[in-house]
Amino acid sequence: MSQLQDRIRASIRDVKDFPKPGILFKDIMPVLEDPELSADIVKHFASVFSSQGINAVVGVESRGFLFGMALAIQMQVPFVSVRKKGKLPYQTISYKYDLEYGSAEVEMHIDSIKAGWKVLIHDDLLATGGTATAAAELVKMQGGNVEAFAFLVELEFLNGRERLEPYTKNIVNLVAY
Amino acid sequence: MSQLQDRIRASIRDVKDFPKPGILFKDIMPVLEDPELSADIVKHFASVFSSQGINAVVGVESRGFLFGMALAIQMQVPFVSVRKKGKLPYQTISYKYDLEYGSAEVEMHIDSIKAGWKVLIHDDLLATGGTATAAAELVKMQGGNVEAFAFLVELEFLNGRERLEPYTKNIVNLVAY
Repeated sequence: MSQLQDRIRASIRDVKDFPKPGILFKDIMPVLEDPELSADIVKHFASVFSSQGINAVVGVESRGFLFGMALAIQMQVPFVSVRKKGKLPYQTISYKYDLEYGSAEVEMHIDSIKAGWKVLIHDDLLATGGTATAAAELVKMQGGNVEAFAFLVELEFLNGRERLEPYTKNIVNLVAY
Repeated sequence: MSQLQDRIRASIRDVKDFPKPGILFKDIMPVLEDPELSADIVKHFASVFSSQGINAVVGVESRGFLFGMALAIQMQVPFVSVRKKGKLPYQTISYKYDLEYGSAEVEMHIDSIKAGWKVLIHDDLLATGGTATAAAELVKMQGGNVEAFAFLVELEFLNGRERLEPYTKNIVNLVAY
């Protein structure tokens, strides 16, 4: 695990002043461009959660689609998309949440999660936790149980974890800053 | 293959009047929610392209991330993201293209494709071919060769294939309408 962490840390690229001045952005694109590392990340997550009876992986648009779908296939469970409002074509449930300025709204198809399912929510990065919280609310609205959160990167100084712990304390990251 | 096609056809959901009246939308979300089918799709694409010396899979945001990343891992080649303008944090090249009303612009990181690479471009659906053409132009701008296109679904009545054939005639779909 610590070796995997080191390889991820070595691959993540720091980009200054993105998306706005003063922000040091953690760019995971070089991780995706390393197929051995990407495969090992998927296997690692699958191994961590293999004994937890996960029934579905929820991935958050857009970057949560990348490892989320690969992980769902590896774990042999359904992949469920959380998308920005207006993107999912069928009937949806939606959840609106506050951002620093304004708000965002995400949706899930109404028939994606079955009552009682143990759900793993994945996104590439945990920052303030707004989007992950919204995904968790959508899972709960369908009667699912939020069993775990899995992130490639956690920005600990933003305290997003505090907002997720009411759902589950099973919050896994691969690297933290 | 024909059995795989039948399973995909049976999973795709027709949604009327999305995103606007008169459009019959092909919803692939139920495909993702079938992990055996999803795994077989990835294996099928990997098998089709296994002998073609592919050096990278390019996936187009957002739905092209789903099977694109899983396919890159399966093929053990880098996954390269094409994203909407303003989403990629590092230095980018961009390509602007016309839509029915207005235009769209997509980007790729400048260091993602090496000169001479054989590149497979993936998206979930081929419609008019505007986005796939833009992805192909970004590959060419970096000195890459567009070796193939792979789509889950092709809407043949929109003739997108005609716009892609100048890049390569190696255009693979799993189901066509």
